[in-house]
Amino acid sequence: MQIIYVGNKAPIRYATAVATEFEKGAEEVLVKARGRAISTAVDACQITLNKFLKDIEIKDIKIFTEELENRNVSAIEILLGRIL
Amino acid sequence: MQIIYVGNKAPIRYATAVATEFEKGAEEVLVKARGRAISTAVDACQITLNKFLKDIEIKDIKIFTEELENRNVSAIEILLGRIL
Repeated sequence: MQIIYVGNKAPIRYATAVATEFEKGAEEVLVKARGRAISTAVDACQITLNKFLKDIEIKDIKIFTEELENRNVSAIEILLGRIL
Repeated sequence: MQIIYVGNKAPIRYATAVATEFEKGAEEVLVKARGRAISTAVDACQITLNKFLKDIEIKDIKIFTEELENRNVSAIEILLGRIL
């Protein structure tokens, strides 16, 4: 599965990356982020769904905690896929 | 249903507020946030689940777009409830 890791760039950058994967034929794209980038990941998915791709929907959302260099950080995974 | 609105305070504040609602007997608590506070909401829920309350789980997560004074802002709703 294609995975897009969201960092500290503008949400539109990640939305474009997601749209590109679907245009290349991906059935599903997993958008992942940690910490402050979680908000950016949600923004990116909303831009993808509202502006770019009308035949894509949210299939699943998970939130969890990752251990990272002795500290815990929150994380999100948003699974996007084609509307069947 | 009890609703906790997450803003720009520290995540532990909201985690405490959620735990208090469950201790008062709530069956479900909905954690809501917009924009940059989305990351804080995820942190708050993870603190609630990992540190405070062992009998609570995530029942549902929704992300969506809200129209706010002529601009669009991403939002999240995390539904927490007792493990049955």
